[in-house]
Amino acid sequence: MTAAPAYRRLSVEERRSQLLTAALGLFAHHPPEEVSLDDVAEAAGVSRPLVYRYFPGGKQQLYEAALRSAADELQHCFDEPHEGPLLPRLSRALDRYLAFVDEHGTGFSALLQGGSVVETSRTTAIVDGVRRAAADHILSHLEVPHPGPRLRMTIRMWITAVEAASLIWLDEGKQPPADELRDWLVEQFVAALEVTARRDGQTKALVRALVADL
Amino acid sequence: MTAAPAYRRLSVEERRSQLLTAALGLFAHHPPEEVSLDDVAEAAGVSRPLVYRYFPGGKQQLYEAALRSAADELQHCFDEPHEGPLLPRLSRALDRYLAFVDEHGTGFSALLQGGSVVETSRTTAIVDGVRRAAADHILSHLEVPHPGPRLRMTIRMWITAVEAASLIWLDEGKQPPADELRDWLVEQFVAALEVTARRDGQTKALVRALVADL
Repeated sequence: MTAAPAYRRLSVEERRSQLLTAALGLFAHHPPEEVSLDDVAEAAGVSRPLVYRYFPGGKQQLYEAALRSAADELQHCFDEPHEGPLLPRLSRALDRYLAFVDEHGTGFSALLQGGSVVETSRTTAIVDGVRRAAADHILSHLEVPHPGPRLRMTIRMWITAVEAASLIWLDEGKQPPADELRDWLVEQFVAALEVTARRDGQTKALVRALVADL
Repeated sequence: MTAAPAYRRLSVEERRSQLLTAALGLFAHHPPEEVSLDDVAEAAGVSRPLVYRYFPGGKQQLYEAALRSAADELQHCFDEPHEGPLLPRLSRALDRYLAFVDEHGTGFSALLQGGSVVETSRTTAIVDGVRRAAADHILSHLEVPHPGPRLRMTIRMWITAVEAASLIWLDEGKQPPADELRDWLVEQFVAALEVTARRDGQTKALVRALVADL
């Protein structure tokens, strides 16, 4: 998005969204502690007081709002119709997720790795909310109404592993190519479930259904 | 460790270690933002000014020192002789790691999950250092002198997955029992490598050696 010329009157919602987009762009390329409200004002082509009018809590409030807006966008990656074979659904969601990671790069790392001076239990809660949503989405696609602890642990472990893999992927200059990474992640998903299936009847039935589904 | 009676003269090192132990005990049961220097002084049975004399940077410095001391302890879990079959070595290291997690409980979660008001890029670097050390240990045991990106990614993913599993394990009232969790984690390790081996010759040779070794 290019900054709207200063003379055009934006609605409150448009203005807010313009400031968030400018902030996200900056947070995507710099750690939050290096981003100032002046930078955000400059990137959005507005005055610093205007940024403060929309985010009177200053940088902390802007950072949280930007994080929440990125989290919302990230959650859209999981929107996938409950139709067709399961593993291709997972592949499509991963494609969208990796495109998001690719686009947001550094900001995505900063967000997930924490270690920022503006990190608080609220920002951590936003990130954890995305993780929980991802797990819930997967369980709803797997159509397991009462997932047991071993199955839930396997899914949450895989989600964390996907996060780790995407951070490493960014570190490694986005190698291997996204489609190879995606296939590898899907295979890791099946392999992790297969290990759990050795001890857990619910997961065993699920793996059987997944494989039959292909 | 019980607090030493106030009348005994401790050496500088003993006193420092006494304060760190008291701090770790508190951080193990409360999020860092809820722990005050008064609490640490009380737990150690010393005056608040004494805590400040040792940690003039206040709570932030004490937290970092406690974290570093926990990280050192955690790294000792990885000390394992380069002898005998590989997977039992991994099992023994995991036993020590899970005993550490069991003992430090809440403090371990707070440490790994971040989201604390005293979290900074320095504390994140301490935690990342432990992760890197774990990966280096594993690679040295596997005797792979020049690990390629796919193998490294697999190992780092597994380490993150182990962290996630231990946090979930604490959340779930330490279920399943530690020895079952350990076996499951070892099997997840082998399964993750097997998936990577489908695309990576180096990992394929390694999996063959791992399995022959049993």
